[in-house]
Amino acid sequence: MTEQEKKIRSEMQSVGADALLVTSNANMYYFTGQVVAGYLYIPLDGVSMLFVRRPLGLEAASLHYVRKPEQITEIMKKNGIPLPKRIMFEGDTLSHSEWLRYEAIFQSSVIINGTPAIQRVRSIKTESELELIRRSGRLHAEVYRKIPELYRSGMTDLELSIELEREMRLAGSLGIFRIFGQSLEIFVGSILAGNNACVASPYDFALGGKGIHPSIPVGATNSRLQRGMSVMVDMGGNFTGYMTDMTRTYSIGKLSEKAYRAHQTALEIQDEIARMMRPGAVCEYIYNKSLEIAKNSGLEDCFMGISQQARFVGHGVGIEVNEAPVIGARSRTELEPGMTLAVEPKFVIEGTGAVGIENTFIVTETGNDKITKLNEEIVDLES
Amino acid sequence: MTEQEKKIRSEMQSVGADALLVTSNANMYYFTGQVVAGYLYIPLDGVSMLFVRRPLGLEAASLHYVRKPEQITEIMKKNGIPLPKRIMFEGDTLSHSEWLRYEAIFQSSVIINGTPAIQRVRSIKTESELELIRRSGRLHAEVYRKIPELYRSGMTDLELSIELEREMRLAGSLGIFRIFGQSLEIFVGSILAGNNACVASPYDFALGGKGIHPSIPVGATNSRLQRGMSVMVDMGGNFTGYMTDMTRTYSIGKLSEKAYRAHQTALEIQDEIARMMRPGAVCEYIYNKSLEIAKNSGLEDCFMGISQQARFVGHGVGIEVNEAPVIGARSRTELEPGMTLAVEPKFVIEGTGAVGIENTFIVTETGNDKITKLNEEIVDLES
Repeated sequence: MTEQEKKIRSEMQSVGADALLVTSNANMYYFTGQVVAGYLYIPLDGVSMLFVRRPLGLEAASLHYVRKPEQITEIMKKNGIPLPKRIMFEGDTLSHSEWLRYEAIFQSSVIINGTPAIQRVRSIKTESELELIRRSGRLHAEVYRKIPELYRSGMTDLELSIELEREMRLAGSLGIFRIFGQSLEIFVGSILAGNNACVASPYDFALGGKGIHPSIPVGATNSRLQRGMSVMVDMGGNFTGYMTDMTRTYSIGKLSEKAYRAHQTALEIQDEIARMMRPGAVCEYIYNKSLEIAKNSGLEDCFMGISQQARFVGHGVGIEVNEAPVIGARSRTELEPGMTLAVEPKFVIEGTGAVGIENTFIVTETGNDKITKLNEEIVDLES
Repeated sequence: MTEQEKKIRSEMQSVGADALLVTSNANMYYFTGQVVAGYLYIPLDGVSMLFVRRPLGLEAASLHYVRKPEQITEIMKKNGIPLPKRIMFEGDTLSHSEWLRYEAIFQSSVIINGTPAIQRVRSIKTESELELIRRSGRLHAEVYRKIPELYRSGMTDLELSIELEREMRLAGSLGIFRIFGQSLEIFVGSILAGNNACVASPYDFALGGKGIHPSIPVGATNSRLQRGMSVMVDMGGNFTGYMTDMTRTYSIGKLSEKAYRAHQTALEIQDEIARMMRPGAVCEYIYNKSLEIAKNSGLEDCFMGISQQARFVGHGVGIEVNEAPVIGARSRTELEPGMTLAVEPKFVIEGTGAVGIENTFIVTETGNDKITKLNEEIVDLES
């Protein structure tokens, strides 16, 4: 039995469930290490069963090919496997129509929403998951090291983004990354230059940007990079199926004094968060402390946005870019070893753009490890 | 009132609904031309109301800012707007948890699944939508024209893909495109070279490929392109928020005789489909005819895959890459003017790779228009 299965079974026991039905790609990858179109049935006791529609040609013990989910319970009955009394479905992921279909299949069972339990389990990474995240972090940082070489005077934010997307791919980025829920949409990541960082977005990312088309209103706008602009690079690093998140700030020539001061405050907030992040630390205290430092620096009006401010300063990452926990207002979660968090204090300075930092950290027994290591000062791309 | 709203109201009337609540990004873009985080309430009679959470700063008649969906009915009551008797939600898109929340908000209403009605309406494009699709098709074809220049001897399938992704972006591709449902995952598109085209995929695309990592098992594998291989390029063209889909086949030197014969059969199938596609034509007849041509050519065993065969030869495209209707087995849909379909007859030849074609067509009053125009023969990248 995998570590992942052990953990979810312990969670099942504590919420009184005797089975979990997994159908989403993210959770299928989490529990089996592969993506199949099908259904993974994890009982509290006994052997998990994988029911596969696609791809053809797989072989494993307890693997059954099916054409439709209605065959799951038929096969269970034929094999003398008792149906569950209380089964968890992925209620925050399954569409309502799918839920109804699976509910009819398990009509003799009580159905409960298993998403919160899965999210809790997934928030604490196993050693093998941490290895994949660390590898992603190393590759992520290596690509960012090349950013100054990719810049040419007169290019647009979008052109710089495209060259960076290419470098990410050449270094092994899978391109897409998974996002929990259906509301967030982004391509690889974003570059926010100058006042585009002030544009409020429909998406609940830390910062927005107008984008190049109203159908995907986020990120670069294809505007020329000009002297006095900050250039914030925030790409998702998916090199291993596990995400890292990382932001660095660049400048075109010199920035305003306020921008440098705000950047130093962002670094100070990051370092304070790094001091606080250890097992037992409560997320909202960390967020409140960040806000306090921003206030004491007189920068609260531009902390995490200006026309629209994000109410968090960090978020879990893993198979998805927006995992638990959130370092935000009203998050009572206590940190535990194995949690992996992107910490991203940022400020938006009108007339200059966004400044600040983002790194991915792993919470350890005694503190945390920063795994996206690279110079954190503002680098002048023109120098 | 927009054309889109007129169409959905007529559909509402025919299914006996007096309102629709829109929450997904795709449908928000469809009905309003923009993406907001919020809720669009479309009544059968009266003015639609847009309830916005993000971004801040929008202004319009009938636009209300809210923090949470529970305020929708509060605001309606305050404005003397009657609550609906029978409201449609996006049942195939909303998560079960979200459905329950909205159901509680509209507790005095009967809730029905509106997804089928929305899909019917969206399958027939308006003139302004067709304009966006035509523009996407032109840009898509222009980028493909450059493929022979992007190739260098000794490169891998992934390297060619990365250079092509970059060209797509430089031409204005938004990068990501929308996919209905949560099971399909792909980055920009795929390049399938040689026997990688034989690899069965968990994803229900026409063809699969192994990919570079088990977490996203689709497409190129970073293997060197070698003499005798076919190279199938199938990228999604999202330049306008509306998709086109297009495939061209290339070769590294000469291919097997069977591969050229299969490619000609694919073109023959495409041309026969183009002859059949007109208002009133039934999708499954078109599919059956395709299968018949493949059979008569003795190529049925490798039509639409080899280790795993797709049961369709075409699919609707629009805001999402997998819209209605499907040209597949058991699809009784009759074509109508304004439907937009990607037609993709393909064969997989062991030892060579995939061959075939894909173009996007718009059904007109009298037939159809092909909108992704470019040479359709196999182009030798080494010549």
